[in-house]
Amino acid sequence: MRKGTFLLVVTLFLAGMIVWATSNVWATEKKGAEAAIEHIVDVQKYNRSIHVMAMLLVGFGFLMVFVKKYGRSAVTATYLLVSIAVPVYIFISSKGLIGEPKSEVDTLLLAEFAGASLLICAGAPLGRLKMSQYLLLGLLFTPCYMINEWILLESGLGLIPKGGFVDTGGSILIHAFGALFGLAVVMTMTTKEEFTAPIEADHTSDQFSMLGSMVLWLFWPSFCAGLVEPKLVPFTAVNVFLALCGATIATYIVSANLRGKIAIGDIANAALAGGVGVGATCDTAGHPAAFIIGILAGTLSTIGFVSIQPALQNWVKGIDTCGVTNLHGWPGLMGGIIAAFLVPGITANNQFKGIIIAIVLALVTGYVTGQVLAYFGRRRVPYTDEEEILA
Amino acid sequence: MRKGTFLLVVTLFLAGMIVWATSNVWATEKKGAEAAIEHIVDVQKYNRSIHVMAMLLVGFGFLMVFVKKYGRSAVTATYLLVSIAVPVYIFISSKGLIGEPKSEVDTLLLAEFAGASLLICAGAPLGRLKMSQYLLLGLLFTPCYMINEWILLESGLGLIPKGGFVDTGGSILIHAFGALFGLAVVMTMTTKEEFTAPIEADHTSDQFSMLGSMVLWLFWPSFCAGLVEPKLVPFTAVNVFLALCGATIATYIVSANLRGKIAIGDIANAALAGGVGVGATCDTAGHPAAFIIGILAGTLSTIGFVSIQPALQNWVKGIDTCGVTNLHGWPGLMGGIIAAFLVPGITANNQFKGIIIAIVLALVTGYVTGQVLAYFGRRRVPYTDEEEILA
Amino acid sequence: MRKGTFLLVVTLFLAGMIVWATSNVWATEKKGAEAAIEHIVDVQKYNRSIHVMAMLLVGFGFLMVFVKKYGRSAVTATYLLVSIAVPVYIFISSKGLIGEPKSEVDTLLLAEFAGASLLICAGAPLGRLKMSQYLLLGLLFTPCYMINEWILLESGLGLIPKGGFVDTGGSILIHAFGALFGLAVVMTMTTKEEFTAPIEADHTSDQFSMLGSMVLWLFWPSFCAGLVEPKLVPFTAVNVFLALCGATIATYIVSANLRGKIAIGDIANAALAGGVGVGATCDTAGHPAAFIIGILAGTLSTIGFVSIQPALQNWVKGIDTCGVTNLHGWPGLMGGIIAAFLVPGITANNQFKGIIIAIVLALVTGYVTGQVLAYFGRRRVPYTDEEEILA
Repeated sequence: MRKGTFLLVVTLFLAGMIVWATSNVWATEKKGAEAAIEHIVDVQKYNRSIHVMAMLLVGFGFLMVFVKKYGRSAVTATYLLVSIAVPVYIFISSKGLIGEPKSEVDTLLLAEFAGASLLICAGAPLGRLKMSQYLLLGLLFTPCYMINEWILLESGLGLIPKGGFVDTGGSILIHAFGALFGLAVVMTMTTKEEFTAPIEADHTSDQFSMLGSMVLWLFWPSFCAGLVEPKLVPFTAVNVFLALCGATIATYIVSANLRGKIAIGDIANAALAGGVGVGATCDTAGHPAAFIIGILAGTLSTIGFVSIQPALQNWVKGIDTCGVTNLHGWPGLMGGIIAAFLVPGITANNQFKGIIIAIVLALVTGYVTGQVLAYFGRRRVPYTDEEEILA
Repeated sequence: MRKGTFLLVVTLFLAGMIVWATSNVWATEKKGAEAAIEHIVDVQKYNRSIHVMAMLLVGFGFLMVFVKKYGRSAVTATYLLVSIAVPVYIFISSKGLIGEPKSEVDTLLLAEFAGASLLICAGAPLGRLKMSQYLLLGLLFTPCYMINEWILLESGLGLIPKGGFVDTGGSILIHAFGALFGLAVVMTMTTKEEFTAPIEADHTSDQFSMLGSMVLWLFWPSFCAGLVEPKLVPFTAVNVFLALCGATIATYIVSANLRGKIAIGDIANAALAGGVGVGATCDTAGHPAAFIIGILAGTLSTIGFVSIQPALQNWVKGIDTCGVTNLHGWPGLMGGIIAAFLVPGITANNQFKGIIIAIVLALVTGYVTGQVLAYFGRRRVPYTDEEEILA
Repeated sequence: MRKGTFLLVVTLFLAGMIVWATSNVWATEKKGAEAAIEHIVDVQKYNRSIHVMAMLLVGFGFLMVFVKKYGRSAVTATYLLVSIAVPVYIFISSKGLIGEPKSEVDTLLLAEFAGASLLICAGAPLGRLKMSQYLLLGLLFTPCYMINEWILLESGLGLIPKGGFVDTGGSILIHAFGALFGLAVVMTMTTKEEFTAPIEADHTSDQFSMLGSMVLWLFWPSFCAGLVEPKLVPFTAVNVFLALCGATIATYIVSANLRGKIAIGDIANAALAGGVGVGATCDTAGHPAAFIIGILAGTLSTIGFVSIQPALQNWVKGIDTCGVTNLHGWPGLMGGIIAAFLVPGITANNQFKGIIIAIVLALVTGYVTGQVLAYFGRRRVPYTDEEEILA
């Protein structure tokens, strides 16, 4: 506890200093601008940032509540992870420490995307970290995420020309990166005892999980179209909804056929894979293509939950509590790869280079982060609510 | 099961083909347009489409969770129904198969309205259909809904002159049509055993139901004002909120007086009747009139739950699980009729003609659909979660 | 019961008459206006009014569900309180009875703010009022709230020059006023028996409470920026989110250190104190200042729950069921005081005068309201769901 507390104080100090040092350059800039239209477009982006925040807190937070004995810890951790990622991203970005500074509302949206990726990542070791370790995870993850974003989108290190890598809705940048980072973390955090301990859910925890799922589903177009120019927003929204519809139907069929009965966890998770898969092509794919991508993503994700995850966990010796590789990992990679063939004007070469960079960076930085986290404590069996929360 | 699976494959195939064939004409059209304002207005409609989707999934989905033993099935069915209705509507409409094609964002909103009507309809036979039958219900319902919409709003078959029938918020088109279609379906699906089996709820399922109710309540102005021009949106919103406030207070008073204590099901449902009733006049009624319509709708709906439903169920030999006739049926019809007297510039004759067409079409197509569904299986007692969902 | 019913009928009659008399002057005014931009800006405000309504119903409603035996009553009361406050405010304001009439959408937002303050107030005597008494509370609270608003913002009674008091996000006007009004109400409503009766929560009620908390958290920027001009909306949003992040982290640390383990009630409530505290300076403070205000507010609020509340309750002889003084009272006052030093162009004198007026008015009108409520019934032990709701 003492070490955890110390860690916390340091964390807070860093975060406090960091944000204190941020000067509000943006407001001053904006004041000079006369164009009412521009402000209105920014307010529309702001509105989408609220939608994305709904996804982060209620969406991801409650999707993770399916773990019956860890539900209140999961939503508390969600609060803490968001509260670390957003200020840290805003500081680093506005200061131009990693990548170029953007407009205020764009920075807010990008900070939320970082928060989404962090929550995806945290879904893998869920239940195996103390609250203070989630804070540390957030502090370590965010810069790694930003470096990947900078390399893939802003020609960081000169590896990929600007505009060479396409990923409007974050199939690779947000989903695959977060999932693979999480996978690497659990390699160091999982113990043998956990392989035999089942993750228990009950009807109520399942319902909360479905609530989180639905909140993610319905706001997903705002996630993908967050930074899209106004004239493409409706087009993007239809694409995302079609992909989600396709994934939902596919998940139902595949789950029912592979398992005999459907698993509510498949429905809650794999139905969302359409949004993950269509991310990279959400503003460029035709509607039929978006629907097909959704069907493929839902199918792949469900197969992931049924068949791939058990094999993978044995191989990496790690438990992926929420199955983030199934929902965000493989469908994200699929989406990024499809973009190489579907999006006009890009070379497949750059797209693949970006994907490989993201995979390597996520696994390496995730593994190192896992080692650091393990230094601050490693449990034999998963935590329950009672250990850090008063009854 | 084998028949169900076969049905599903066919369903998916049809839906897949259908959407595949949709070409993205809209995006091309939009690209030529220069007017930034127009795009901004479209993005505002898009935003309302997100609100409506929140109503469809979290709203309708969780409102139906009050059935304790069928909660996870209800939200799964909600996912599937939305995932069928939206793509099918978008395809049929964009191809001009029923009615004229509209702009992309208008099509999305109209597709969601079809989804809302389908969910209302499905509330009647809730618990009496297999998952695959919900999919089939969606596939059959959507074209019927669209034919009704085309006749009433676009002078389909030349029965009503364009603009002759007024129903901005869908009192008749969405609510009454869906409820009556559902009523006709249950005529063929209900068995004698169901008349004695009580529908069980508990505290948690009631809370989820109230959550769904509140999500419907708060986003209702976006539902009614979905396609309304910008300058009337605030006016419409105030009307809808006043109607909902009136209905909520009326529901409380009527429920407490008729039952001795209030029933949480009355509050969760009848409080929403204000939105149903004010639909047809949401952008034309004065604020006091909207408030009064809300009071009347809440009163009528609560009386429906207390008194009308038992009598009606005996008469039609069918169980309306969610009481959709009380929430959407009678208040919807009332709203449509009031519009004949309140809305300036329309002739009551056309309005009544439209209402009668909607009633007849809903009952006839609903009855036929029920027969088709019954062919694929008919249960003696309601389904529970365990039958199609892994524990 | 008979008295309660009579009270209700009178209440409804008054409310009905009140709203009936409202003529829709706004719509007529708007029709003349040509400026599309202006309409679009109004629709954006409308959108924020939907967000605020989400906070009122799902946010405040479910935050109060933590009282296990009173959960369904709490959400029902939420419905009723909103349904009284909004129409009453709209009528009084549009008729110019208290303060000047505003534009339609501004009136809607202000009416919702009144509803928020009423819900905060009702959180104090939660469980000690019959449903009909909540209605009466709403009827009495709303005009008092409006008089305070008029004095502080519109130079009512000539006490404070217009623009002299600054409180964009309602730290004083909404939060502190509602909390102190509620505190004064409980002085008359609490009985000795209640001091020994613990307020029970369980895992499910805690989860619902966290859901309400998260909905409040994520929509808070729309609450603070409700009436802010477009160009400052993104700036305000970042401030509010930073304050909430700061409060969330601070709450976790303070709760864990003062209690040994965190209390879920601290997390659900005190994490929101950042929004309360930053209200008065949400559009003027720099981002680092907003983050620091959040940390201070979260710390103060958590200390309130742990230490101040027990002492305060003994002193005033009243139970504050939801701890509204901790979440809304002290952080609200803190925010209002900070504004005196941070906001450029205001004199601290006027700001302090406004704060003192709000405190006195809240306590006096709250105490009188409590006396009136007590006349209609006063319970020895808290109500449970079963007393007014059918099982």
